[in-house]
Amino acid sequence: MAAELTAHELIARHRPTLDQALDAIRTRAYWSPHPEHPKAYGENGSLDMAAGKAAFDALLGARLDLDQPGTDGWVDGETSPYGVDLGVSYPHADLDVLLPAMKAGMRAWRDAGAETRAVVCLEILKRISDRTMEFAQAVMHTSGQAFMMAFQAGGPHAQDRGMEAVAYAYVEQVRTPDTAEWTKPQGKRDPLALTKRFVPVPRGIGLVIGCNTFPTWNGYPGLFASLATGNAVLVKPHPRAVLPLALTVQVARQVLAEAGFDPNLVALAAERPGEGIAKTLATRPEIRIIDYTGSTEFGDWLESNARQAKVYTEKAGVNTVIVESTDDYKGMLSNLAFSLSLYSGQMCTTPQNLLVPRDGISTDQGPKSFDEVAADLAKAVDGLLGDDARANALLGAIVNPDVKARLEAAAGLGEVALASREITHPDFPGAVVRTPVVVKLDGAKPDAEAAYMSECFGPVSFLVAVDSAADATELLRRTIREKGAMTVGAYTTSPEVEEAVQEVCLEEAAQLSLNLTGGVYVNQTAAFSDFHGSGGNPAANAALCDGAFVAGRFRVIEVRREA
Amino acid sequence: MAAELTAHELIARHRPTLDQALDAIRTRAYWSPHPEHPKAYGENGSLDMAAGKAAFDALLGARLDLDQPGTDGWVDGETSPYGVDLGVSYPHADLDVLLPAMKAGMRAWRDAGAETRAVVCLEILKRISDRTMEFAQAVMHTSGQAFMMAFQAGGPHAQDRGMEAVAYAYVEQVRTPDTAEWTKPQGKRDPLALTKRFVPVPRGIGLVIGCNTFPTWNGYPGLFASLATGNAVLVKPHPRAVLPLALTVQVARQVLAEAGFDPNLVALAAERPGEGIAKTLATRPEIRIIDYTGSTEFGDWLESNARQAKVYTEKAGVNTVIVESTDDYKGMLSNLAFSLSLYSGQMCTTPQNLLVPRDGISTDQGPKSFDEVAADLAKAVDGLLGDDARANALLGAIVNPDVKARLEAAAGLGEVALASREITHPDFPGAVVRTPVVVKLDGAKPDAEAAYMSECFGPVSFLVAVDSAADATELLRRTIREKGAMTVGAYTTSPEVEEAVQEVCLEEAAQLSLNLTGGVYVNQTAAFSDFHGSGGNPAANAALCDGAFVAGRFRVIEVRREA
Repeated sequence: MAAELTAHELIARHRPTLDQALDAIRTRAYWSPHPEHPKAYGENGSLDMAAGKAAFDALLGARLDLDQPGTDGWVDGETSPYGVDLGVSYPHADLDVLLPAMKAGMRAWRDAGAETRAVVCLEILKRISDRTMEFAQAVMHTSGQAFMMAFQAGGPHAQDRGMEAVAYAYVEQVRTPDTAEWTKPQGKRDPLALTKRFVPVPRGIGLVIGCNTFPTWNGYPGLFASLATGNAVLVKPHPRAVLPLALTVQVARQVLAEAGFDPNLVALAAERPGEGIAKTLATRPEIRIIDYTGSTEFGDWLESNARQAKVYTEKAGVNTVIVESTDDYKGMLSNLAFSLSLYSGQMCTTPQNLLVPRDGISTDQGPKSFDEVAADLAKAVDGLLGDDARANALLGAIVNPDVKARLEAAAGLGEVALASREITHPDFPGAVVRTPVVVKLDGAKPDAEAAYMSECFGPVSFLVAVDSAADATELLRRTIREKGAMTVGAYTTSPEVEEAVQEVCLEEAAQLSLNLTGGVYVNQTAAFSDFHGSGGNPAANAALCDGAFVAGRFRVIEVRREA
Repeated sequence: MAAELTAHELIARHRPTLDQALDAIRTRAYWSPHPEHPKAYGENGSLDMAAGKAAFDALLGARLDLDQPGTDGWVDGETSPYGVDLGVSYPHADLDVLLPAMKAGMRAWRDAGAETRAVVCLEILKRISDRTMEFAQAVMHTSGQAFMMAFQAGGPHAQDRGMEAVAYAYVEQVRTPDTAEWTKPQGKRDPLALTKRFVPVPRGIGLVIGCNTFPTWNGYPGLFASLATGNAVLVKPHPRAVLPLALTVQVARQVLAEAGFDPNLVALAAERPGEGIAKTLATRPEIRIIDYTGSTEFGDWLESNARQAKVYTEKAGVNTVIVESTDDYKGMLSNLAFSLSLYSGQMCTTPQNLLVPRDGISTDQGPKSFDEVAADLAKAVDGLLGDDARANALLGAIVNPDVKARLEAAAGLGEVALASREITHPDFPGAVVRTPVVVKLDGAKPDAEAAYMSECFGPVSFLVAVDSAADATELLRRTIREKGAMTVGAYTTSPEVEEAVQEVCLEEAAQLSLNLTGGVYVNQTAAFSDFHGSGGNPAANAALCDGAFVAGRFRVIEVRREA
C-alpha cells in the first residue's frame, strides 16, 4: 500500500530523538522528551486537559472498533475504581483468523530494517503523547490512580519506558552491520573472500499480558521492544484495564497503516468475563515472546508452560526498607510517608516491611525508640494525608475488592501503629479511598513471619522489630531470596551497615535506594537511568530495560557467499 | 592473597587485543590473534609440535591433580578413538564441598570489574594458546579428529570463540556506566539530584556440559562468557573427552591464582562411569547458568527441568543443501565432497540432506541428471579420499560405536551412490576410519522420509530427489521448522530460487551459505564474523556469539542516593 508517511520523513522527524535516547541509556543522566507538567499539553497538536477529558467522555458507552480481522463479537464490562461504568466495547477475536492475519505483514516489517522500525515506533509514541490527557483519564478510570499520577505515570513516564525499549532494541540490532567483507589471508595463495549479509529476524508474535494497576507503564516496554525488533504484537489487557491499551493498539494500527505497513502487526485480544484467554494464547505456537506483569502464580505458570516462547515476567515481591539510623529524621519520615501513601501502596515497588531495631535508632534528633519511630511515622502519614483533597490526590482509589479485603484484614495481624481511614471522594462517591495501615510485628515471633514474609499488595506496611542491623540485613537477604523484591531501601549513617546492606543487594540482585529524604522515592524509577527490577531475584526475571530485555526478541541470520 | 600478576599488568598486556576483538565483532571482518599454521608455534614461549606431543605423552597414565576442594576420589577411563588408552585420572568432587568453595571467591571476582575479568580471561586464553600443540593431541585423542583439525579447530579456532565470548561479555557489561549523576529540573525549585552506582553482578555458578566431538570449541564460549561476567564456572566434560577441558580448568586455576583470585572460581566435575552427574548438577540451586552441547533429548530435558538456571543449548539438527543449478559444477562437487568428508561428517554443521531435482540440474558443463549428480559427487569424494594418507588426514576416526553402527545401517536405507570404505591408519591400527556413505532417496516416498527427516549423525548423507526447486524449498522449510538446522547451503544460478531459499532461511532462522565452490565450507564458521547456529530454530536456543548469548549471564544492580 502507498505510504502517507515515508520512512525518510519519519527518520527526519524522529532520528534526533532516537539519538538522544541512545545517548541517555549510555550516560544514564536525566532525560525525557515527554513533559510531565499538565500545562505543557495543549500545544503543537496535543490535547489539553479539558480536550483530553472530552475525548475520554466521548469513548464512554461506545464501541471501539479497531477493524481487526477475525472479530467475532464485542466485549465490555470495565468499571472504574471511581465507580463509573465505562461501557466501552472492544472487538473479541477469533484467534484462528487473527493470528495468521498478524503474521502476514511481518516480512515487510522485517525488511524495513531496524531504523525504520524504530522511527515508526517513535511516531506511535508521539501520537500517544499528543493524546496524553485522554490516556490519563483512561488510566485513572481503570487503575484507580489519582489524576496526576495517572497522567504522569500512565502518560510521559510510560512513554519514556516505551521509548527506552525502542532505543535498546535499535542499538541491539545494529551491533552487527548489514554487510561485511571478510578476507582471510592464505599465505602465498589467494585469500579466501566472502561477502556476508546480516539480517535481524523476528521470533514471531509477541504477546503482552497487561496488568490492572499500570496498563501502559508496564505494557509499553514489552510492546515496543517486540515491535521494534520486527515482531507482531498481540496485546491482551487485564479485563479491568482494557481502555488504555486498546487506545494504544488503535494508535499503533493507524501509524503502521499510514507508514505503509500492515496494521495487523499490532492487535488487541480482549476477553469475555471468565474466558481466561491468556493461558490459551500463551501456549499457541504463533506466540514466541510473552511479556507479563501480574501474580507470581500465573507468572510461574507461564515460565513453566509457555515453552515455545521467550517469557519476560514481573511478578510479586516483598519490598523491604531497613531503618537503622539517619541524620535527617524528619526527611526520612516524610519520604517514607509519601512512599507508603502514593496510589494507596498499590505499586509493585511500594515498601512493605520496614525493619527497625527493637532497641531503637539514632537520629539527628537524638535516639528514637521503636515505638517512637512507629508513632512518628504514623504522624508523618497523618500529616501528609490530613487534608482530604490532598489525600485523594495522592491515594487514588482502591483498585479492587481483594485489596480492600487485605487492608481490612491487616489490622488483625498485630498492633496497629497507624489505622487506615476511609476518605470520601468529592467527585466520585463510588470510589473506595483508604489511607494506609501500618502494623507492628515482632520479627522474632514465628507467627508474625507468615505476615511479613508474604506479599500483602495494597496500603499495608509492617513495622518489623529486629534484634540488630545484622539481623535486619539477614532478614533482608532471606526475604529477597525467598520472595523477591522490586526495591530495597535503607536508612543508615553507619558505613558498615551501608556496606552490609549493599552487599546483600548485590548478592541477591535487588535495586537499592539509600537514605532518600527528599523528592525521590524508593518506589519510583526513571526511564533511561534507573532499572526497574533486576531480573535476578524471584520478583521478576527481567529488568526494564537492559540488553537482556531485548536481545532474545530477534535473531541475526547470515547469508554468505564468495566475494 | 598477593597477586603475582596485577590487573594493571594484565590490562597493559591484553587491552590492545581486547580492543581488536571489540572492533572485529563490530565490523565482522576477518581477524584472529591465534595462528592456525603449525609453524607459528614454538616461539615466544609456545610449545612446538614435538614439545606439545611430549607434554601430552607425559600426561598419559598420570593423575591430573587440580588441587580442588572436596576431591573424594579419582576417575579415569578415557580411550582414544585412535585406540590409545589415555589412563589419565581426574579428581572426583563431593559437590557439597566443591560448590560452596566455588562461591567463596565470587565477591572479589565481581568487585574486580568487567575489564579486569576480561584481561584475566585473555591471559587464560594466552596460556592455552601457548600449549596449543599439547591441546591438539588431547583433542585428537578424545574427539577422534585428525591431527590438523584437532590442532586448528581445537586450538586457535576454539580460542577465537572463547575470546569472542569475552569481547561480547565485556561490551555488554560496560554499556551501563559505573556511575551516573542524575539531575532532574523542577522548575523554580531546586533540581532533584541523585548519584547512582551500577554494578554488574553474576548469577551464580555456570555449568558447562561438554561434548565428545568438540570439547574446547563448543566448551569455550559458555565457559568464558560466564567467567567474564563474574560467575564461577564448573566444567562437566563428556566422559570420553575429559582431558582437553581438564587442562583448560588447570590453566584457568593457575592464572586466577596468579592474578590474586580464588582458583576455585573454575573447577572440574569429572564423573564415574554411569554416574550421570549432569542431571544432578543441572538442578542444583547453586547452578544458575548452563551451557550444553549434545543430544536433543537431554537438551530438551535441561530446558524443561533446570528452571533455576539460564540454559543455552546446542542440540541436533538436520542440515540441508539445495542443489538446483550451478555455474561451477566442478567447484561445487569438490566443495561438497570436502564438507561431507571432514571429520567423517561428525560435525553438527555437516550437510545431511542434499536436495536435487529428480529431473536434474543445469550446470556450466551442461544439464546433469539426478543420477549423474550422484555419480559425480561420489567421484569427487573418491578423488578427495583416494589417497589413504590424505583420507586419514581429513577423516579422523569414528568417535564412538554408535556412529559406526549408524554408518553401517545407512547403506540399507536406499540405493547407495557412494559406499563407505574402511581405511587403515598407519600409526593407530585401533582407529576406526571410514569414508562417507551417500544414499539416494526419493523425497516423494513416505518410507524415505523417516530417514531424511531424522538426524543421522556421522558420515552419512542422503541425496534426496525432489520434484522442483519449489518442492526443495518447502522441504527445507519443514526440515528446519521440525528438526532444526545449524547450517543450510544452496547452489543456484536462479535469482528467484536464491530469493526463495533465502526467504525460508530468514523466516525459519537458519544460517545460509550460497554457492560455495572454493576453500570455505558450509560446515565451518569463523569467530568474530560468522554466527554459529541462530538460536531461532530447534537445533539450538542460542547462537555463538551474540548479545543474547551474554546478556542474561549477569544483572545490573543500581545503588542510588541523593547527591
